[in-house]
Amino acid sequence: MRDVAIVGVGMNKKWGELWEDSFRDIYVEAALNAIENAGVDHIDSMYVGCMSSGLFVGQEHVGALMADYLAQTPIPATRVESACASGGAALRAGWMDVASGAHDIVLVGGVEKMTDVGGDDATYALATASDQEWEAFSGVTFPGLYAMMAVAHMARYGTTSEQLAAVAVKNHANGNLNPRAQFPAKITVQTVLDSVLVSDPLHILDCSPITDGAAAVILCPADRAKEFAKNGAPVKIIGAGQASDTIAYHSRSDLTAIESTAKAAAEAYKMAGKKPEDMQLCEVHDCFTIAEIMVYEALGLVEKGKGGPAIEAGETALGGRIPVNPSGGLKSKGHAVGATGVAQAVEVVEQLRGECGDRQVKGAKLGLTQNMGGTGASSVVHILEVM
Amino acid sequence: MRDVAIVGVGMNKKWGELWEDSFRDIYVEAALNAIENAGVDHIDSMYVGCMSSGLFVGQEHVGALMADYLAQTPIPATRVESACASGGAALRAGWMDVASGAHDIVLVGGVEKMTDVGGDDATYALATASDQEWEAFSGVTFPGLYAMMAVAHMARYGTTSEQLAAVAVKNHANGNLNPRAQFPAKITVQTVLDSVLVSDPLHILDCSPITDGAAAVILCPADRAKEFAKNGAPVKIIGAGQASDTIAYHSRSDLTAIESTAKAAAEAYKMAGKKPEDMQLCEVHDCFTIAEIMVYEALGLVEKGKGGPAIEAGETALGGRIPVNPSGGLKSKGHAVGATGVAQAVEVVEQLRGECGDRQVKGAKLGLTQNMGGTGASSVVHILEVM
Repeated sequence: MRDVAIVGVGMNKKWGELWEDSFRDIYVEAALNAIENAGVDHIDSMYVGCMSSGLFVGQEHVGALMADYLAQTPIPATRVESACASGGAALRAGWMDVASGAHDIVLVGGVEKMTDVGGDDATYALATASDQEWEAFSGVTFPGLYAMMAVAHMARYGTTSEQLAAVAVKNHANGNLNPRAQFPAKITVQTVLDSVLVSDPLHILDCSPITDGAAAVILCPADRAKEFAKNGAPVKIIGAGQASDTIAYHSRSDLTAIESTAKAAAEAYKMAGKKPEDMQLCEVHDCFTIAEIMVYEALGLVEKGKGGPAIEAGETALGGRIPVNPSGGLKSKGHAVGATGVAQAVEVVEQLRGECGDRQVKGAKLGLTQNMGGTGASSVVHILEVM
Repeated sequence: MRDVAIVGVGMNKKWGELWEDSFRDIYVEAALNAIENAGVDHIDSMYVGCMSSGLFVGQEHVGALMADYLAQTPIPATRVESACASGGAALRAGWMDVASGAHDIVLVGGVEKMTDVGGDDATYALATASDQEWEAFSGVTFPGLYAMMAVAHMARYGTTSEQLAAVAVKNHANGNLNPRAQFPAKITVQTVLDSVLVSDPLHILDCSPITDGAAAVILCPADRAKEFAKNGAPVKIIGAGQASDTIAYHSRSDLTAIESTAKAAAEAYKMAGKKPEDMQLCEVHDCFTIAEIMVYEALGLVEKGKGGPAIEAGETALGGRIPVNPSGGLKSKGHAVGATGVAQAVEVVEQLRGECGDRQVKGAKLGLTQNMGGTGASSVVHILEVM
């Protein structure tokens, strides 16, 4: 396998409710930014991570659409879907494409336009990431599923509502420093606890928002990285892992753990020759506050059951032992589902290049992305190191 | 890049309106058949080609779902979408996975369950393969788009309705010999011309049906193929190509050609070191009769404009110069959109192994699959040779 580097990154200007911009517009904006950032003059192949464009905007065949609107036909263009891990899965597909030797310059994008439908339709579309026959059809939606995870974690480990709220507080504090963030407002634990209850114990401020957004990265063989990366140091993908789990939450052997993340991370750590304690920052999938706490444990950043105390102690804050979600995470930056996994890579690359201004993790050379689908039926982990 | 072989193939028993079987059932049936055919005892990674499960059955996150129901968690499981070329794109993703060295035993499946919704909803779902803003939104659907292609081809090259009908007649004659075919009935040119007009000049018997179906293949490194392939000779993927084109038909530079297929085929021929005249059989994307005629030309099986005379002369019939769609094609075997590209590979493998009974292309050692999405905005071509 060839080593692979990220040599350019881009996003659309700001994530949020983008009523003036279409699905294809926001993708093209992000992709052009990545192409310009890399300084490449062509692309050999492209992948688009997108979860549910059929339900959100009445458009499948997203690879060809985006190749067309990016004026890159006739290159191969393929969409990759793995629910909210679609972006991470697309990054992995692009990594394999370069690693295999099939293509040299590969564009990996992620995009979702979620606000063209109303809230009920968006909730229906998102619920297609769960088990249609055993979960969605019975009426359970994602706030309900993650609420069950929170209840289970609280019951076994004593995790508290205040600890959940502390995740939101940290991520909004970080997002406040990120010009791209959809909800940059600072909040307090009390604001979260006073916000409307969506599914006990999760308040609305425990939930990530519905977002329009896109992100893109340019990959190439690591030994050609110096040719490109015109606007920032190249970053090598030193570890990659992906794992699946039962699609239905009720079928898991352990209701308080995200096993697919633990397995994907173990594979990525092994490939990279690194350990959890080597990580200098992580961008993780905080679709709900409880998710971030469970992901700390799955990644081995803390022991099992210690995620709640870790957030409370500030271990994962900017300036803490291991900063998590310096971008603001899904919670504050926004969660354009198919784009999230790629946006995580954009943030880590910009951090490793030292370009993040007030939210910069000082001196970071190595970071991790963790992107997951459903209640953790899919997880994709990448470990990135500046070259 | 490592060479890659197909060592097992499988489909669900019969394609058609499978009201007793669910989306996951038909996938698992096909995948288990492929696993048993190969004789492998585990899988390292899997890809699922599926076009629009969100709209057809309210389920995205298809990779994880199928890994779960196939009892293969925690392996990496990813869905690939490229409209009606989703199956071909999934085969290509699996090929890259093995070629890169990331995994050794990879399951590539394709599946679509299209009859759980009514005809209007199915037509809407299929139209998401076209340009939502410039085609679908204006009310044009695929019979209308392919009718325009037929009109253009007729105007430039003198192609006739009888020649279109001859494609359907040939494919039903072949499908009549295929126990898996959805519509195995033999028909005549007159039957086609007398059938109801869907979109002038296309009659209903010029159109492929709406189908529930699944197909699967097992890939491994070619140098390990002899370890598996327990129930038939291994078949090597000697050529692979993929290309894109404008998503909207009206934007094409030539309305009478499928350029993406021509480009994907050129890439595959070059990799294989073969020419069109070396092919001994082809499985191609006859979603409408005009498509098969245009694909003959794009693949270089005949000169431009000579597709109509070729079908009329019987050149592509069983026993002809270059048999096309011995399976019955999409037209007679059925068109479960996300599964079609994988089912084409199943047919070619079974042909190259000499397992096809009355529809066997005698002595075939080399064959080609051509799978496309939309009106040809995506094309994927593979060339297979028995080892």
